[in-house]
Amino acid sequence: MASESGKLWGGRFVGSVDPIMEKFNSSITYDQHLWEVDVQGSKAYSRGLQKAGILTKTEMDQILQGLDKVAEEWAQGTFKLNPNDEDIHTANERRLKELIGETAGKLHTGRSRNDQVVTDLRLWMRQNCSTLSALLRELIRTMVDRAEAERDILFPGYTHLQRAQPIRWSHWILSHAVALTRDSERLLEVQKRINVLPLGSGAIAGNPLGVDRELLRAELKFGAITLNSMDATSERDFVAEFLFWASLCMTHLSRMAEDLILYGTKEFNLVQLSDAYSTGSSLMPQKKNPDSLELIRSKAGRVFGRCAGLLMTLKGLPSTYNKDLQEDKEAVFEVSNTMSAVIQVATGVISTLQIHRENMARALSPDMLATDLAYYLVRKGMPFRQAHEASGKAVFMAETKGVALNQLSLQELQTISPLFSGDVSHVWDYGHSVEQYAALGGTARSSVDWQIGQVRALLGAQQA
Amino acid sequence: MASESGKLWGGRFVGSVDPIMEKFNSSITYDQHLWEVDVQGSKAYSRGLQKAGILTKTEMDQILQGLDKVAEEWAQGTFKLNPNDEDIHTANERRLKELIGETAGKLHTGRSRNDQVVTDLRLWMRQNCSTLSALLRELIRTMVDRAEAERDILFPGYTHLQRAQPIRWSHWILSHAVALTRDSERLLEVQKRINVLPLGSGAIAGNPLGVDRELLRAELKFGAITLNSMDATSERDFVAEFLFWASLCMTHLSRMAEDLILYGTKEFNLVQLSDAYSTGSSLMPQKKNPDSLELIRSKAGRVFGRCAGLLMTLKGLPSTYNKDLQEDKEAVFEVSNTMSAVIQVATGVISTLQIHRENMARALSPDMLATDLAYYLVRKGMPFRQAHEASGKAVFMAETKGVALNQLSLQELQTISPLFSGDVSHVWDYGHSVEQYAALGGTARSSVDWQIGQVRALLGAQQA
Amino acid sequence: MASESGKLWGGRFVGSVDPIMEKFNSSITYDQHLWEVDVQGSKAYSRGLQKAGILTKTEMDQILQGLDKVAEEWAQGTFKLNPNDEDIHTANERRLKELIGETAGKLHTGRSRNDQVVTDLRLWMRQNCSTLSALLRELIRTMVDRAEAERDILFPGYTHLQRAQPIRWSHWILSHAVALTRDSERLLEVQKRINVLPLGSGAIAGNPLGVDRELLRAELKFGAITLNSMDATSERDFVAEFLFWASLCMTHLSRMAEDLILYGTKEFNLVQLSDAYSTGSSLMPQKKNPDSLELIRSKAGRVFGRCAGLLMTLKGLPSTYNKDLQEDKEAVFEVSNTMSAVIQVATGVISTLQIHRENMARALSPDMLATDLAYYLVRKGMPFRQAHEASGKAVFMAETKGVALNQLSLQELQTISPLFSGDVSHVWDYGHSVEQYAALGGTARSSVDWQIGQVRALLGAQQA
Amino acid sequence: MASESGKLWGGRFVGSVDPIMEKFNSSITYDQHLWEVDVQGSKAYSRGLQKAGILTKTEMDQILQGLDKVAEEWAQGTFKLNPNDEDIHTANERRLKELIGETAGKLHTGRSRNDQVVTDLRLWMRQNCSTLSALLRELIRTMVDRAEAERDILFPGYTHLQRAQPIRWSHWILSHAVALTRDSERLLEVQKRINVLPLGSGAIAGNPLGVDRELLRAELKFGAITLNSMDATSERDFVAEFLFWASLCMTHLSRMAEDLILYGTKEFNLVQLSDAYSTGSSLMPQKKNPDSLELIRSKAGRVFGRCAGLLMTLKGLPSTYNKDLQEDKEAVFEVSNTMSAVIQVATGVISTLQIHRENMARALSPDMLATDLAYYLVRKGMPFRQAHEASGKAVFMAETKGVALNQLSLQELQTISPLFSGDVSHVWDYGHSVEQYAALGGTARSSVDWQIGQVRALLGAQQA
Repeated sequence: MASESGKLWGGRFVGSVDPIMEKFNSSITYDQHLWEVDVQGSKAYSRGLQKAGILTKTEMDQILQGLDKVAEEWAQGTFKLNPNDEDIHTANERRLKELIGETAGKLHTGRSRNDQVVTDLRLWMRQNCSTLSALLRELIRTMVDRAEAERDILFPGYTHLQRAQPIRWSHWILSHAVALTRDSERLLEVQKRINVLPLGSGAIAGNPLGVDRELLRAELKFGAITLNSMDATSERDFVAEFLFWASLCMTHLSRMAEDLILYGTKEFNLVQLSDAYSTGSSLMPQKKNPDSLELIRSKAGRVFGRCAGLLMTLKGLPSTYNKDLQEDKEAVFEVSNTMSAVIQVATGVISTLQIHRENMARALSPDMLATDLAYYLVRKGMPFRQAHEASGKAVFMAETKGVALNQLSLQELQTISPLFSGDVSHVWDYGHSVEQYAALGGTARSSVDWQIGQVRALLGAQQA
Repeated sequence: MASESGKLWGGRFVGSVDPIMEKFNSSITYDQHLWEVDVQGSKAYSRGLQKAGILTKTEMDQILQGLDKVAEEWAQGTFKLNPNDEDIHTANERRLKELIGETAGKLHTGRSRNDQVVTDLRLWMRQNCSTLSALLRELIRTMVDRAEAERDILFPGYTHLQRAQPIRWSHWILSHAVALTRDSERLLEVQKRINVLPLGSGAIAGNPLGVDRELLRAELKFGAITLNSMDATSERDFVAEFLFWASLCMTHLSRMAEDLILYGTKEFNLVQLSDAYSTGSSLMPQKKNPDSLELIRSKAGRVFGRCAGLLMTLKGLPSTYNKDLQEDKEAVFEVSNTMSAVIQVATGVISTLQIHRENMARALSPDMLATDLAYYLVRKGMPFRQAHEASGKAVFMAETKGVALNQLSLQELQTISPLFSGDVSHVWDYGHSVEQYAALGGTARSSVDWQIGQVRALLGAQQA
Repeated sequence: MASESGKLWGGRFVGSVDPIMEKFNSSITYDQHLWEVDVQGSKAYSRGLQKAGILTKTEMDQILQGLDKVAEEWAQGTFKLNPNDEDIHTANERRLKELIGETAGKLHTGRSRNDQVVTDLRLWMRQNCSTLSALLRELIRTMVDRAEAERDILFPGYTHLQRAQPIRWSHWILSHAVALTRDSERLLEVQKRINVLPLGSGAIAGNPLGVDRELLRAELKFGAITLNSMDATSERDFVAEFLFWASLCMTHLSRMAEDLILYGTKEFNLVQLSDAYSTGSSLMPQKKNPDSLELIRSKAGRVFGRCAGLLMTLKGLPSTYNKDLQEDKEAVFEVSNTMSAVIQVATGVISTLQIHRENMARALSPDMLATDLAYYLVRKGMPFRQAHEASGKAVFMAETKGVALNQLSLQELQTISPLFSGDVSHVWDYGHSVEQYAALGGTARSSVDWQIGQVRALLGAQQA
Repeated sequence: MASESGKLWGGRFVGSVDPIMEKFNSSITYDQHLWEVDVQGSKAYSRGLQKAGILTKTEMDQILQGLDKVAEEWAQGTFKLNPNDEDIHTANERRLKELIGETAGKLHTGRSRNDQVVTDLRLWMRQNCSTLSALLRELIRTMVDRAEAERDILFPGYTHLQRAQPIRWSHWILSHAVALTRDSERLLEVQKRINVLPLGSGAIAGNPLGVDRELLRAELKFGAITLNSMDATSERDFVAEFLFWASLCMTHLSRMAEDLILYGTKEFNLVQLSDAYSTGSSLMPQKKNPDSLELIRSKAGRVFGRCAGLLMTLKGLPSTYNKDLQEDKEAVFEVSNTMSAVIQVATGVISTLQIHRENMARALSPDMLATDLAYYLVRKGMPFRQAHEASGKAVFMAETKGVALNQLSLQELQTISPLFSGDVSHVWDYGHSVEQYAALGGTARSSVDWQIGQVRALLGAQQA
């Protein structure tokens, strides 16, 4: 039989209340971040109630003023939490009642925490997406500015981390900037799906008081309203999408960080990180470590972990609201903070990075022009597959003789193919090489300029 | 010193070739799915080469006819793979050379497998997205048709899996249909980003032969061209996006499957799965198991696993092409097949599911109207918080007396609040209850009709 | 050219210090949890330095006393952090220097933060694993006690969520308890691999001062020492293992929670959660929601997310220490806290759960004995496949006639098989049914008792 | 009403059978890998049935011979699948019946596919773990042999990818070998948990025929029997553990691959991959790409994806068998194959890798001895923190003067600290440097020898 305390079996003592359960259940430690949007949502809802005839004009005004006072207390840091405030919604309503009395009890009419919390979260995330969008565009803009300024610097392009072909340094910068423009575009799409009003969905069945959801939408400046109340209160697609957006964006930033870490090694020695983004060693006096870049790289894992965690939680649910959904907010807050810091640090890194131009130039070597040597033969009429093979033979000959590829004499080259003639010497000019790649998207100066124009146009369009 | 065999140290024998490495490196077992798009891409590229003056008209025609022959062999199942065909690109080019001779060697001029494979994959995925889109819309349409036909059937809406409020059965169907419309919308966005041409990016630096990428784009009907050759050959955002799209879509289908599995238990007994989607037990003669729904549920894990796996692979890379990217294709093929099967099975399940109307009606109980009882008081002027409390007292009184909530006498109710009067009897009508929820998105008939109209309009717009 | 401020290009202002970078880099907000183990590690290390002749006895005593004072300040909450204390190690050493002067500067001789932090983390996790082990055994013990007390209660066993066969309620409890014993066993294995000393590995190359690592091991009571300094400072297998341990344990607790949520629905109505672990609805007065169980279920996602996140971070690294590894601690702290809360809440839930015996009995139905009916025929000599079919015919006959399976007359049964005779009536006794399953691991009373004994023996052995 | 075809609503046509559902449900395409263990399990079970009196000796012999014939057909490739064989269990039993008649129908008595399939899977995995263990030990042995042979070669140890301190090349090899010994140890633990017999658990309730599970265990050489039939038929911990084992092992191999890819760049130029493990470029004649290492790196993502996918599937389940569990096998087969290939390719890579000794030596530079310079001062009595600072000043002085650190004159050094004297010249000897790190686990020769001994001892113990 159950005792008074509710304890039936061995195990830890349990009275009518289990303090660990209380803490486990409470969300106020983190959902207080929503104080401002919670007040906004309640103000709009009280307007809806007044139009529906549930509140008189006087009652509505009383509630609006009370809510403004609540917001003021939060803004000034004077809001006092009670031990019973399990979440921001109960805290704000409790305080409202203290301030204006029983009328406060009318505010929640026809509303449920199910539609309230998801409205709050959407409002918060909509604002946050705008902030992140602006930071991201600032990063891209910094990269494009730098690409424009340094577009005459050449260095090795790598594939498989092996030296491949000479490219413009700006071409490398733009390769990362272009990837980030996709993130920027995707964030706007996610924001569009965030920007949909669920308020007026109640707990599951909808709103029974004839509240005008179009009025709520207009008040809160949402782009649309949700279509189905069961779905509206329990779907967290927009959270999952945001977390995935962040995960994919972080893979881009992680790849850029990885490149810069490599280029900053003693061995590559192509770039040098500003002191502001490096740290020393507690043991080794000569060390300067690229901690900023390593942290960016590591955060990609953390952010993805949040995405994976939320998806696993969502996947196991039946439909409509289940308390499991409470997991959404900490994920959103943590990932938003991380993204904000990472993007700003990346901007700082890019804007202060020093490059070693001489080393970049020195890292170019004639064997990186083997492809161009093949094209030379192609232009003389040889099918590419044969030209590729002929160029391969030249590479092998140079290696065997222990000379650079461009040190082979014309006679030697002609033993490989009679198509070689004096003009082959033009091949050995790196500047000439990159200028060949003039098709759109290539590394020729004209194409790099085109890329800069394209990215700037995109940024302009996205900002609008 | 290395011996002839290349073997330096203990360990397994290694000659000049390691058969396990050969197999490890080869992708032909799965990338042969790309045969058709590989031929398409090559045909377009040969047109580009002709315009650029690399191919004569005659050579181009020779190549085009050869490629058509290659495609014919694949289509008829007569294409013979050689042991040396490590991937579909080498297989097709090898065969082309056998068919038309040395001219075949000109086809790859200025092209790299790096831009070739990603062009092929984009072409394949673009087509596949169209197929999946059509299947998904068919599923949604089936759901909406059913929702329309059965919209007068009521049953319990659950939150936290506890009976919450009476809702229309159609409201439940639509809650899942609406979720799927977001997947349908997202798939179009992913397809838009798939539909961008990378051909003409070469291995890293771009194309040096002045190939007109706009011509290639138009030939292959892409919506745009990639901006940067380094990014174009190594970004797999569109793959990651597709895999995440599938993961999120699967969480929706898994949640619907979970609902139906529950509703189909002996205990809920609200629906019955068609025999075509159930299986028996090898041990228990009386069992009929919802295998179709369980498999749908399980595939959500598998699909997400592919997404997680690819992201982890991408995350660890420096920029430009690395062989690690070869992992993209198996993930795409497997997930595409899974999505196709899951969506079709889900359509079959929904279109043949039987519902137990009487059980649905019987599952409604007066305590589910406690919220409406509170609203009754609200309409009489009581603040909601007090009304909620008063209704709670009535629930407690009924439980204590061991009667249903609607069995409390008016006198008994009036001990709780003097606002109760004779018209409280209207509260106990389930049909009346649902009709209250007439705000857009609610479970009233008008709102359900509105939802049906909205979803149909969306489907129409997406199909266009 | 770089300006004084280090700012080269557009983008946010950057002076010699970027406050966002400072915060990004700092770990003191969370790694201060390590204060106690950091002091422990430093005390042991100073003993090592003294034995190696780097410290005099007097210097060592000075350091030991200083460190005790540092610990005392932390314990009493009087330790004051400086803005420059980027991590717990620098904070403690800074404070030590304030307390004892320049001698403090000898403590770090031959030590690096690389080996220091991983020693601290291992010490912390070792203690934490002991705590979690004890909590987990307490949960299992509670379950076993309950299983013993309630072993005569029968209810339906479900597969595919369809009623399958009658089982003992205790058999269900034990199915989850047995799963948790594996977690308990695995945690001990993880703890064994945590319990290995890395101190004395320096930054990468080892310790150059002849510090006796066996002495350090004995001082800190580690079970073994790490074998290779490069590996020791950068491997986080023990963290990944711990996070995976937690993920798998959570899937067990999530599955148990899922069962209880279902059994607690109005439809199943087999169990009732204590009020201490339920919460009400802000809208619906009649609702009591199983929030504790839903939160347990949801935390499985969060915990797995941390595991996935760390693995992704680790996967992308080259060998030896990289700053990326700083991600390990927050994951460990968060998951440890979550596990502690979840296990305790689960214990409370199990120890206060009420079961509805009559409903359990009522939920048993004759069709669940169809398998036993087949066994009846098997015992009469019919091959099982035929018996399975015959029993299936009986099920169909009963359904067709609209009667319960046990309502079929002997004559009716004999139309299916002449092997049926009067003793078939014994089949319809649920108590008799479960007693058949007497092979070890089955649901007969003897086997349930055996299970209880086995689990208790395991707990005893693990505690030792 | 449902029509004959079962089709109620729009959507694709569905008759009594949906071919897509049939294919979706079927597992024979992959679970036929289990043919041998399925026969083994059935043979053991028929012995159990005979002892329990369900089979006569003659019947048992008939079944045993029939099963041997089935196995023979599989082994010789003559087994013919029927379209109705949905899984390996029904295929084998169907064939058995064709071979020996009705007696075959007795084999499944008291057995369910639930306990049958998990027995099969455990048998298969137990064998597979032995194979993988042997391959892994072979890899470790190859690494240790190489470490022993090349232990006098020094090269830079990197942290944060920055040159840190001189270390032995063997120290690097051993750092990876030691990590793999943990994988080897963990695999044995996983195998121990795989090696537990579930047969005799039936579908859920256990075995009602008094089958002696100890006999089954002994027949199939399992180490123990499962404790609870509900748990036994539905837990897949051993699968999850195996997949996680593989994921963690892959992070180690990926990190080693990453190191080797870096060391093999033109910039590091420390090692050269054998041609057998490299491939060329379709475009660039001079390229040789480390495809083997990149593929190893990429497989870490794929393997983790399978682990994540299975965990997500498991997490969402209620207890006991659900069809979702069918996902386990493809994951196991794919990951097993991948691990086998990866480990063998890694062994081949290590055993044929060439190292560039001169480049390794040349890559060492005096600034990497800055830590040793600090230790020099420590040994003269200076506290480490001051010595670290003094050494830092020397590094700065050398940089400012544009000379190497060891080019500073004694006088110059003495301006930093009077403790410098003539013997400082000993610091600049790399061989002398590494020999300082003689504490266990360090890079001194004695310690490297100790490591080799320790790892060999571990391998010996694990093999036993």
